[in-house]
Amino acid sequence: MDQQKKNEIFDYAKAWVLEAGERIKSNIDSPRSIETKSNPNDLVTEMDQETEQFFAKKIKETYPDHYLLGEEGFGDEIEDLGGTVWIVDPIDGTMNFVHQKRNFAISIGIYYEGEGEIGLIYNVMEETLYTAKRGEGAYKNDVKLSPLNEERPLNESILALNTSWMIPENPHVDHQGIHDLVKKLRSTRSYGSAALEFALVAEGILDGYLTMTLMPWDYAAGSILVREVGGIVTRADREELDLLNKTTVLASRPNIHEEISSEYVRLKK
Amino acid sequence: MDQQKKNEIFDYAKAWVLEAGERIKSNIDSPRSIETKSNPNDLVTEMDQETEQFFAKKIKETYPDHYLLGEEGFGDEIEDLGGTVWIVDPIDGTMNFVHQKRNFAISIGIYYEGEGEIGLIYNVMEETLYTAKRGEGAYKNDVKLSPLNEERPLNESILALNTSWMIPENPHVDHQGIHDLVKKLRSTRSYGSAALEFALVAEGILDGYLTMTLMPWDYAAGSILVREVGGIVTRADREELDLLNKTTVLASRPNIHEEISSEYVRLKK
Repeated sequence: MDQQKKNEIFDYAKAWVLEAGERIKSNIDSPRSIETKSNPNDLVTEMDQETEQFFAKKIKETYPDHYLLGEEGFGDEIEDLGGTVWIVDPIDGTMNFVHQKRNFAISIGIYYEGEGEIGLIYNVMEETLYTAKRGEGAYKNDVKLSPLNEERPLNESILALNTSWMIPENPHVDHQGIHDLVKKLRSTRSYGSAALEFALVAEGILDGYLTMTLMPWDYAAGSILVREVGGIVTRADREELDLLNKTTVLASRPNIHEEISSEYVRLKK
Repeated sequence: MDQQKKNEIFDYAKAWVLEAGERIKSNIDSPRSIETKSNPNDLVTEMDQETEQFFAKKIKETYPDHYLLGEEGFGDEIEDLGGTVWIVDPIDGTMNFVHQKRNFAISIGIYYEGEGEIGLIYNVMEETLYTAKRGEGAYKNDVKLSPLNEERPLNESILALNTSWMIPENPHVDHQGIHDLVKKLRSTRSYGSAALEFALVAEGILDGYLTMTLMPWDYAAGSILVREVGGIVTRADREELDLLNKTTVLASRPNIHEEISSEYVRLKK
């Protein structure tokens, strides 16, 4: 992607994210209807839908040849990542949005010919904006994040990990390996927003994030951020992410990535 | 406790918490030595010790007849809760303090003849102060918190729960009951600070908090806060907390408390 074009797209994306965040914040206490999707815990609100429509309109007006892949279905039917594709989660952490009115984020990853060029994650209520352009590092509110160069071993590491993967009946991963991982780690955390968990890995606040079911909009921005500080982001079996389908994800500091994947993660399929 | 005395003690406690928080914040980026206590993951920093010493000095100067029960051992040897006892955790969430430089709190519970009279929890980096006086409700930064009167059922509830209790080898609780609980819940969270998890229950942001090993200073303030908004705080088996020993704790909205305890928690001893 041409540098000048990339800067221009970044500036628009940043302005739209801040504008969308302002709209969400000013409506946070309005009554709202909450729908559930396929699964009763998969919530969606009018605000999710309105925010995605806002991005769809802005993108189509400004860049009619760009594509949008969005969680709420106001984007394009996409079969590959040719051209420029905006991958948008209007509210990542909808359950936090509904129950907590905080700890949710707008997540935007912008890809050109399949390559992640721009990532933005905006913690709306905290007004913290994480950004990255490929090859130019990652930033938190315009302060450059340090590279993840620490050699802290796994037994001193803190991982974002959901309790779901520790249950025998989960269809994705052998729970015993995850039990062994929890015993090895210093501790685990769970914040309920994939985008923010990536941002915290990029910031060095978490040493890694392991999860079994992410959609492209959950990690499109986060994976760019984490890679820009030297972290590794792959499927949990260390294969490349495909960005079009539901997937497992392991994002971490480089020195613990292979150890987690090879010694503790045994995928069921 | 006499109302005028209670107000005076509250005002001192609040001023000291804010002063201690300011000292912690201004030193957050200083290099520090980290010791481990009995267990390699039980961290303690100079800042924990200095902050407890700060409170010990203030309390002893102002109220020579009050007792201090503190995590770091600068208080009194206490065998009962007679008189006025300050139960202090200078930095609750030391692991977050060390690894994240955020998401930790100062926690102070003040008891008179065994009854919790005053609770303060200060999220230092976020500058959020939760306070409660017995019979007068709970506050977040001087805004009164609403009573926990919702009837949200367990399958729509979010519980703070550590992954440790899902491992078969944990010595405290039957892991299968906890697995069943996780399957029933809408979701779980884990923030790494007991005091803040109590504060979030009081705020209605979490529906409950279940844990197996808390010391008195971890819950002395939080239990007062949660009770002041109508929540229930007991041991995980619904027996009364004793405030002098390590214990299990279940704090939650009233309508799910008995269900969690009786249907999912099977203590091992």
